[in-house]
Amino acid sequence: MPPSVPDPARRNERSHRAILEATVELVAELGYEQVSVEAIAKRAGVGKQTIYRWWPSKGAVALEALDDRLRTAPGGGSSGSWPDTGDIVEDLRVQMYGVSELFTSREVGPLYQGLIAAAQCDPALSRAHLDQLIEPASVACRARLALAKERGEIRADADVQTLIDMLWGALYYRLLLHTRPLDLAQIDLSLDIVFRGLRDA
Amino acid sequence: MPPSVPDPARRNERSHRAILEATVELVAELGYEQVSVEAIAKRAGVGKQTIYRWWPSKGAVALEALDDRLRTAPGGGSSGSWPDTGDIVEDLRVQMYGVSELFTSREVGPLYQGLIAAAQCDPALSRAHLDQLIEPASVACRARLALAKERGEIRADADVQTLIDMLWGALYYRLLLHTRPLDLAQIDLSLDIVFRGLRDA
Repeated sequence: MPPSVPDPARRNERSHRAILEATVELVAELGYEQVSVEAIAKRAGVGKQTIYRWWPSKGAVALEALDDRLRTAPGGGSSGSWPDTGDIVEDLRVQMYGVSELFTSREVGPLYQGLIAAAQCDPALSRAHLDQLIEPASVACRARLALAKERGEIRADADVQTLIDMLWGALYYRLLLHTRPLDLAQIDLSLDIVFRGLRDA
Repeated sequence: MPPSVPDPARRNERSHRAILEATVELVAELGYEQVSVEAIAKRAGVGKQTIYRWWPSKGAVALEALDDRLRTAPGGGSSGSWPDTGDIVEDLRVQMYGVSELFTSREVGPLYQGLIAAAQCDPALSRAHLDQLIEPASVACRARLALAKERGEIRADADVQTLIDMLWGALYYRLLLHTRPLDLAQIDLSLDIVFRGLRDA
């Protein structure tokens, strides 16, 4: 194919990429609520109909843009990315530090807050968020915790999904309720509580 | 004052109450997003301007309606309501069961989800939510946990705010991310983890 004829597949890929980038940038600049599909299309240099051909709603574009950012970041939690150094506390710490840094970043924090807000009145978006982000990350985390149980690092009768809900729940609690800034020291304190327990040793 | 002359203070109190009740009912029926200030005014039998005289926004009315429901419920967490049976695990359990039951109730669940969603793009509402609901509840919980430390039920170097973030964070995680239904068994499992710790005893 001579170079003067554009390749539609490559053009599509470039447009797709430009839309995700435009979404991340605009939400970081203006906040989720203030960003329209029109504005995303304009910034990406595509027509609004191009966006609606690929995604049903602004929330769906935002979810893919978020997924894209999480996948390419350490601690993003996409399946398969869990470290195994043989020390479960350190591996949890590294993953949680990564998530905390993403949540406090200019690009991911406001995008994720906006998406979870939008999902409260959009059951399809809420479902897609669970299926595409939360559940794959939970599967990968549960697999790593199962190894830790086999190796005797975690007692056999502890409920690992409840552990995940508590450790990650504390991060989402701060992201969404804005109770305290997310900082890494709190992650160390939470790991101290769950591993040592609250009773005097 | 003869009974035929209406008392403005009592009339105001009745209207105020009617507005809060209308907000709770309408959100339970239609979902937070679908409810307008006009609809609340109509259901409460007041003018829209009456609502805007007392509250700056729908979110502010919703926050007071939620606060009202939480205050009158067991486990609602308004300050001063923490039990002290002398057993910190049982007292935490009772409070967390109460919150979980509120979160899964038809009246509080959708109202609270809608409010937290709205607060993501409304910093004043987010601040008011912290000041009026979260912080008083945290103060009361920290006071009870401080007693438990004094009595040696919790080791002195455990960070109680991190404990609160994890235990309550897990409940908010399920309320807002819809990962799993809130159930009381998960509360027992979370208390088991934080009190016993994850290591083999």
